[in-house]
Amino acid sequence: MKFCSQCGAPVSLRIPLGDNRLRHVCEACGVVHYQNPKIVAGCILEWQGRILLCRRAIEPRYGWWTLPAGFMENSESAVTAAAREAFEEANAVVDHLTLYGLYSLLHVSQVYLLFRGQLRDGYASPGEESLETRLYAEDEIPWEQIAFTVVHETLRQYFAERQAGAFTLQVGDIIRESENQFRLHRYS
Amino acid sequence: MKFCSQCGAPVSLRIPLGDNRLRHVCEACGVVHYQNPKIVAGCILEWQGRILLCRRAIEPRYGWWTLPAGFMENSESAVTAAAREAFEEANAVVDHLTLYGLYSLLHVSQVYLLFRGQLRDGYASPGEESLETRLYAEDEIPWEQIAFTVVHETLRQYFAERQAGAFTLQVGDIIRESENQFRLHRYS
Repeated sequence: MKFCSQCGAPVSLRIPLGDNRLRHVCEACGVVHYQNPKIVAGCILEWQGRILLCRRAIEPRYGWWTLPAGFMENSESAVTAAAREAFEEANAVVDHLTLYGLYSLLHVSQVYLLFRGQLRDGYASPGEESLETRLYAEDEIPWEQIAFTVVHETLRQYFAERQAGAFTLQVGDIIRESENQFRLHRYS
Repeated sequence: MKFCSQCGAPVSLRIPLGDNRLRHVCEACGVVHYQNPKIVAGCILEWQGRILLCRRAIEPRYGWWTLPAGFMENSESAVTAAAREAFEEANAVVDHLTLYGLYSLLHVSQVYLLFRGQLRDGYASPGEESLETRLYAEDEIPWEQIAFTVVHETLRQYFAERQAGAFTLQVGDIIRESENQFRLHRYS
């Protein structure tokens, strides 16, 4: 951020009075421009034991596989956002969404809200942001081609818990350890 | 938003190519300025059966009671954000936070992540944004002076579930029905 979105004057980066963090502040009109994490809503959808994955038609990770997920919009419910992303990315209609994971991605200031549910009728096809969609059995998952650590870790946990017969809410942080190394810190 | 935060030119409000929503777009430098929901992280903290509430020293709802909660910051964990808010608003140290509620507030584009946990040592005192802090037994809660519907509904559910002996994750939307009327839609 270089200019004030309210008045167009240049902004400065400083700690406002009574605050303890650097903010973009407009010295002309006085507005403090707070920046906050964005929510990514998505879902694990099952059909006859198989899981829906989408192959990304966009960067980052063009060509890699991921769960249907994307940025939540204003004036929207988190549950609706997850269902909308499934429809936009995979023409998939969802049933019975239950919250499965809450993950904070500190390095990109994103919070993932991942639901689990059913893929209605087993139908999916690529939306504009997908090259391909596919229903994967557990032993077919392309583990080396999963786009993001948060998705990789969530799928691993999902299959382990499905095997054990009980799903539990996952809460964790994804922490960047080096440029391409990430680790999951689990709270529960 | 009136001006581009990247180049300072006036922005226009239109649907970008390939999108389906109105966005603020800079016609000078081409940047699309997306706006997304903000996360409010907070907690229900218990000490010897009592719950910590804070009386607000800020608008909106100055003088009304609420749970410690506030906007999550960039580069922060949702769990840490809830703990930080308890410390900032009530000098409270927390233990054992568990996710209890996910609520989407459609009318203000906020997502509440409410955790439950323990108040360490039972100590609390007002931070800068609180007039007063107090540990309330269930039959002392000032129900008519609770600042927000999401907090009111969460506390009601919390006490009911505590009585029943089992907490379950709450997922819901808060929907504005008229200027001062809100209703909770529960998913689970």
